[in-house]
Amino acid sequence: MPHRIVHMLRARGSGRRPVMLAIAGDSAAGKTTLTRGLVRCLGADRMTAVCVDDYHRFDRRERAGRPFTALHPDCNHVDIMEQHLQLLSLGEPILKPVYDHGTGRLVRPELVRPRDFVIVEGLLPLHTRLARACFDITVYLDPPEPLRHAWKVRRDCANRGYTPGQVRAELARREPESAAYIRPQRRWADIVVRFAPVAGRADPPDTPLSAELLLRPTIDHPELGPVLAEAAPPGGDTAMHLRLHRDTDGRPVDALHVHGYVSPEESGPVKKAIWERLAGRADLDPAALGRYGDSGASDPLAITQLLLLYHLLDADRRQQAA
Amino acid sequence: MPHRIVHMLRARGSGRRPVMLAIAGDSAAGKTTLTRGLVRCLGADRMTAVCVDDYHRFDRRERAGRPFTALHPDCNHVDIMEQHLQLLSLGEPILKPVYDHGTGRLVRPELVRPRDFVIVEGLLPLHTRLARACFDITVYLDPPEPLRHAWKVRRDCANRGYTPGQVRAELARREPESAAYIRPQRRWADIVVRFAPVAGRADPPDTPLSAELLLRPTIDHPELGPVLAEAAPPGGDTAMHLRLHRDTDGRPVDALHVHGYVSPEESGPVKKAIWERLAGRADLDPAALGRYGDSGASDPLAITQLLLLYHLLDADRRQQAA
Repeated sequence: MPHRIVHMLRARGSGRRPVMLAIAGDSAAGKTTLTRGLVRCLGADRMTAVCVDDYHRFDRRERAGRPFTALHPDCNHVDIMEQHLQLLSLGEPILKPVYDHGTGRLVRPELVRPRDFVIVEGLLPLHTRLARACFDITVYLDPPEPLRHAWKVRRDCANRGYTPGQVRAELARREPESAAYIRPQRRWADIVVRFAPVAGRADPPDTPLSAELLLRPTIDHPELGPVLAEAAPPGGDTAMHLRLHRDTDGRPVDALHVHGYVSPEESGPVKKAIWERLAGRADLDPAALGRYGDSGASDPLAITQLLLLYHLLDADRRQQAA
Repeated sequence: MPHRIVHMLRARGSGRRPVMLAIAGDSAAGKTTLTRGLVRCLGADRMTAVCVDDYHRFDRRERAGRPFTALHPDCNHVDIMEQHLQLLSLGEPILKPVYDHGTGRLVRPELVRPRDFVIVEGLLPLHTRLARACFDITVYLDPPEPLRHAWKVRRDCANRGYTPGQVRAELARREPESAAYIRPQRRWADIVVRFAPVAGRADPPDTPLSAELLLRPTIDHPELGPVLAEAAPPGGDTAMHLRLHRDTDGRPVDALHVHGYVSPEESGPVKKAIWERLAGRADLDPAALGRYGDSGASDPLAITQLLLLYHLLDADRRQQAA
């Protein structure tokens, strides 16, 4: 009954559509840290953050008897997640399921109304074609596995009441499903973000992690080459560079490296240049960028977030012009 | 970003759409009794029944401090109800909220996949234009208020642990909102169903209630005139008749009366005639029709349900032919 579709669309009217950003990655890959700075910079009144790990089909007790972990698509209402992503991307509210990580139970759902910008983070936001079709910008967080394991042990022991041994056993149990369902999402990201220490350097222990950003030509990135050349110190040991190379699958990408030891003299002009591309946005708060943990500050993280802000505002601009 | 809509529709594919029937009416108006026979006759494997009274915005504790009852649209997620009705009518599953009438709490939502036929019953399914756009057939249950009050007292005391005084107080508190939001839905119904005793007759106490069905020309009803004429007893005191008259708002309607004292000789040919319009449906179970309470059997109820079955199958036929 195609008439019914027309009937509904006519009754619905139209309106501004939110800009949708996906941040996919495995458990404890740093999704929340990356998201938090963006929300603080744009303001919680303009941004909605949604975690798609709430779409569990089974609660913790029900999962116990099943042959898969919470990472498996069959363990999640993937079709409902797709539907809710479509609705959010059309500016429609959703009644989102809620999983209580403390008790491991599914509880009363909550109403989510999309604001101007919607960040969707979680394990499987890029798992299906229909889910991917809902996003303007897609990011995959790809830290080295040993680093992610250490982060997960620290977080789950501090906040979720597990022992290190329990967390390591769970990581081992999840590994086949990480390989089968989580990591394949990397190929669908416009930007692949890897925070890692630089091999072979003896920097002070509080040096932030370096960032490697793979910038795929699936969206229009700002021109960073001239800015980086100008910011480079006269000597030659640049801590930031952009290099053309082939990804693991042979596809061409630009790789932006921002090392943790970058000096403020080198990072400052680049941050300023990207910030100027966001010109006229007096409503943004740059002080919110680059923060991690309780008091950490990282230029590689700040530049990653600036780049994502650039894309969010650019997509918003293009949408309003359309 | 209209492109995104196209993108999604292309990714979604298409399929058979369910036939959607709304049964609206106030609390204890008989919605469940009417629905149950239809589900039993068509089979639970082909029919999905949804109650839209689960879309409460507040639980019982939260409602206690508010100036409206559960009948008020502001007390319900009407926009989410509209959205879910649209999705069901397009053949899409929903994650439906669940209100536990026992505890008065909102609990874990449940997955509902629409089968071939979807019956949506509740207080407000016809409240908005967009909700109404989702239905093929709309019914409003309109018993006389004293009868409905008696039904509600009996049910809420038997099943929900209230005293008669509490139920009557609640009915009084709800009356302004019934008048403002529930009863206005009557005008949007293709069929208005009123079960009531016939005034001025002294039938035995177990005589079923009579049915008055207002058949609005908003959908194509089967031609009942010739069937009724043929079934009429030679004497003249017909217990079933079809009369053209004006509704309370002046609009023309056909009014089908089926009196509770109708004889099997008179009702039989009419039931058979409607049944034959459902010809070839060996998969239907006519024995499920007309049942009420624990062991009641009613020809007026059976004929009402037969007429609704006719419309359900007719809409399904037309959709498959489209």
